[in-house]
Amino acid sequence: MTTTPAQNAALNAAPLPDPVRQPAYAELERRHARLHRLEHLGAIVGWDQAANMPPKGNEARAAAMAELDALLHAQRTDAALTDLLARAGQEPLDDWQRANLREMRRDWRASNALPASLVERRTLATARCEHAWRGQRPANDWAGFVENFKPVLQVAREEAQHLSDATGVSPYDALMDRYEPGMTSAEVGRVFSDLKTWLPGLIREVQARQASEPPVLQPQGPFDRRTQKALSLEVMGRLGFDFDAGRLDESTHPFSGGVPEDVRLTTRYLDDDLQQALMGTVHETGHARYEQNLPRSWLGQPIARARSYGIHESQSLSFEMQLGAHPGFVGQMAPLLARHFGDQPAFAPDNLARLVTRVQPGLIRVDADEVTYPAHVILRFEIEQALFEGGLAVEDIPALWDEKMAAYLGLDTRGNHRDGAMQDVHWPSGAFGYFPCYTLGAMFAAQWFAAMRRATPDLDARLGAGDFAPVFGWLGEHIWSQASRWETPELALRASGEPLNPAHYRAHLERRYLGR
Amino acid sequence: MTTTPAQNAALNAAPLPDPVRQPAYAELERRHARLHRLEHLGAIVGWDQAANMPPKGNEARAAAMAELDALLHAQRTDAALTDLLARAGQEPLDDWQRANLREMRRDWRASNALPASLVERRTLATARCEHAWRGQRPANDWAGFVENFKPVLQVAREEAQHLSDATGVSPYDALMDRYEPGMTSAEVGRVFSDLKTWLPGLIREVQARQASEPPVLQPQGPFDRRTQKALSLEVMGRLGFDFDAGRLDESTHPFSGGVPEDVRLTTRYLDDDLQQALMGTVHETGHARYEQNLPRSWLGQPIARARSYGIHESQSLSFEMQLGAHPGFVGQMAPLLARHFGDQPAFAPDNLARLVTRVQPGLIRVDADEVTYPAHVILRFEIEQALFEGGLAVEDIPALWDEKMAAYLGLDTRGNHRDGAMQDVHWPSGAFGYFPCYTLGAMFAAQWFAAMRRATPDLDARLGAGDFAPVFGWLGEHIWSQASRWETPELALRASGEPLNPAHYRAHLERRYLGR
Repeated sequence: MTTTPAQNAALNAAPLPDPVRQPAYAELERRHARLHRLEHLGAIVGWDQAANMPPKGNEARAAAMAELDALLHAQRTDAALTDLLARAGQEPLDDWQRANLREMRRDWRASNALPASLVERRTLATARCEHAWRGQRPANDWAGFVENFKPVLQVAREEAQHLSDATGVSPYDALMDRYEPGMTSAEVGRVFSDLKTWLPGLIREVQARQASEPPVLQPQGPFDRRTQKALSLEVMGRLGFDFDAGRLDESTHPFSGGVPEDVRLTTRYLDDDLQQALMGTVHETGHARYEQNLPRSWLGQPIARARSYGIHESQSLSFEMQLGAHPGFVGQMAPLLARHFGDQPAFAPDNLARLVTRVQPGLIRVDADEVTYPAHVILRFEIEQALFEGGLAVEDIPALWDEKMAAYLGLDTRGNHRDGAMQDVHWPSGAFGYFPCYTLGAMFAAQWFAAMRRATPDLDARLGAGDFAPVFGWLGEHIWSQASRWETPELALRASGEPLNPAHYRAHLERRYLGR
Repeated sequence: MTTTPAQNAALNAAPLPDPVRQPAYAELERRHARLHRLEHLGAIVGWDQAANMPPKGNEARAAAMAELDALLHAQRTDAALTDLLARAGQEPLDDWQRANLREMRRDWRASNALPASLVERRTLATARCEHAWRGQRPANDWAGFVENFKPVLQVAREEAQHLSDATGVSPYDALMDRYEPGMTSAEVGRVFSDLKTWLPGLIREVQARQASEPPVLQPQGPFDRRTQKALSLEVMGRLGFDFDAGRLDESTHPFSGGVPEDVRLTTRYLDDDLQQALMGTVHETGHARYEQNLPRSWLGQPIARARSYGIHESQSLSFEMQLGAHPGFVGQMAPLLARHFGDQPAFAPDNLARLVTRVQPGLIRVDADEVTYPAHVILRFEIEQALFEGGLAVEDIPALWDEKMAAYLGLDTRGNHRDGAMQDVHWPSGAFGYFPCYTLGAMFAAQWFAAMRRATPDLDARLGAGDFAPVFGWLGEHIWSQASRWETPELALRASGEPLNPAHYRAHLERRYLGR
């Protein structure tokens, strides 16, 4: 049950609201179009803040952005919306409009479900905790962290209860729904349980195999930054980035920002490490192409937004991992590297392919490779579930963390809070329910490529020949053009004919890392 | 009667409004602070549009900027303002607050003096005329232009009458007041009449003198653009630009944008012309330093804005002409040019000084040198006066234009409308009353330097030694720190001890160009 191009074309024509038969809905569309235009300003000045702004501009910029946020919040909490949303639900809407109304309600809920006093307490608690955490983490000060983290968790539990009351799903599911609409912890638990049965063994097997191979050669720097940028731009071009609708700049923390009509990618160049900027650019280009190819005529309405964080990550990982670390793609990159930086033995295609697929369990999630990464996520998901639905106390997190790190990655983290439960910004900032998105994205990417291989049986040969069109065509038709038309589970079903299925991810890892 | 540093310090402390004794005024300050924060967004995305934005981003950007404009306009025309302004005028305010209230009223008038129907007609007429003009000018199509220009002038005449009714000054003065607060056409007419008695003769004398000198050597390109940028940055640094509070980028039409806390300069590099980017950067740095040095504690209130277009131009021309074309400054630039581009005979200080002071009457205002430029402005001022207060018909503009070009610059422009009355964007876009600012700026710049020489008798020697501090110190104390504290005539009086006096401009030209 996948959609055909003809069905897509029909779906992609945004219907004009009828102000007579759909007065409330038409008014909601008008209001959202205005929000969209104002959000454009925030997206561009936010990008500018990271990519351009000199230090003395910060105070005035923060005040300007806060003023815009307050303005948007006022528009999103306008009392008239409650009635408009209720009346629009009674109006004769077609399926597309009904999906748009569903997303309008999600947008409304995000701004209105919580009492103002709770929002204020959350802001105070997370600001205090995150600020202190930046000093406490390097000092490995768990006791100090706990003191600030408890109020954050307390507020988040209340928040989860409010969202649960508003949505009818369980508290932790309600938190997850903010990032991955329609996804449930039962579904995530199902696929993560499966993953846990085979991932630790696979990691050990891959490590043993790689240990028996000759050592991988590291490219020798230094690598001129302007040349790295020229290479990044060339690779973005090969990956179909539309430079008439976006640009590449630099920032300390790479991201994909801007607006769909004008996507602003950033990357970060290191003098002695080529891989980070290059693979980072490939990753961000995946995010960028999703945004650049959202349906043009829908833009301005909530339905036009990218579906979710997990689906967004499935695009960046389709580019970085499925395509970017594919031996066919690596073979295409090898001559580019030699042309930009002069030839060296490390640029041999086989060596490059092994370089981008090295597996090494480690304590830090953001440094993890494709194979060990899910272990970090499963651990956090299980601890979050225990915090929100199992009554786990903050004091008991480290013991559970140690137990799971030993079980999943064979690592000892006892007493090392800095590289343990204190390593991520997510918890101090109250972003509970986010972590699953990373691994959902990786699994969806594998599932998309499995579907592509069914549609294009010679896909691997074509990638090896530098023909990436089947990838872009499939993603464009099944993901990019769908925006927020469906909630995540239905998007997966329509795109690939089945719900989230970890078997594809397993097959991908076994093929790439064990040659099966 | 100039202000002392101690007086300035006292003036520069922005008083906090008293919400009990000054409730209306305090509310006005609060509203203006909010406008200021929102205008920040427009300033940054406007800069981004010129410096960064790829073409496909244009439609969404225009819509976002229009949404912001509508929002700001709604806040500026809020009916409550009429009452607040009236009540604030009855409250006990100190002098600074009263000056701020004067600027609030000016701001209010700019948004409220015209009926909405007139604003709409103006928008339509100028958009149509300016759009058509872009094609008509290259085609020298005067007849076609007249057809669209008549409605623009008609609307502008009505606008002038409305503004005149609101301010109590004559219609043309009311138009000028939008750009140069407090300046009158009587005052401008007085100094321009003086200028006309000696400028045409001086131009001929300078031309004869320069014709008798050996030819000026042109620097030989091509000039690498990155090297030009490095040179521009170095020169900006020498001119005191604060790179922690601004940056330099590129755009088709150079400008100084952004916000006082984060000034965004742009320039434009040509492969075979070094002078344009370099002198353009010096010019824009003058604008930038004014903005960067507006009183910090005033920012957010209308009184904190740069005084006017003429005073702004007096800063850019203080940098470009008074300082930038000064033999002492040129002597400092010569070794920089040789270091960046390798030595060549044209980089000899004496040759460079002659290069930047070449005088040649021409048809085009924007290409004019320092000496002939005022002739272009006087001509336009006199024609605008005749259009608004003398009943001149559009059809009669070319004859008057020809007559004045012959009289002031000895040039024949008959039939050449393209390089005549059709050359500037100001008239098709309805910006009547603006032109005088250019020459007021040049004359004020000469007047400021005359005052500086009184305060620092060895100024020329110090500039020749690379010590520009007396310039920055004087401008900072008398202009930058004053923002909109005074209207233009009083600012001039306080800064230099006299009202606008064209004798300084004449003395400057005679010294520089005739060695007197």
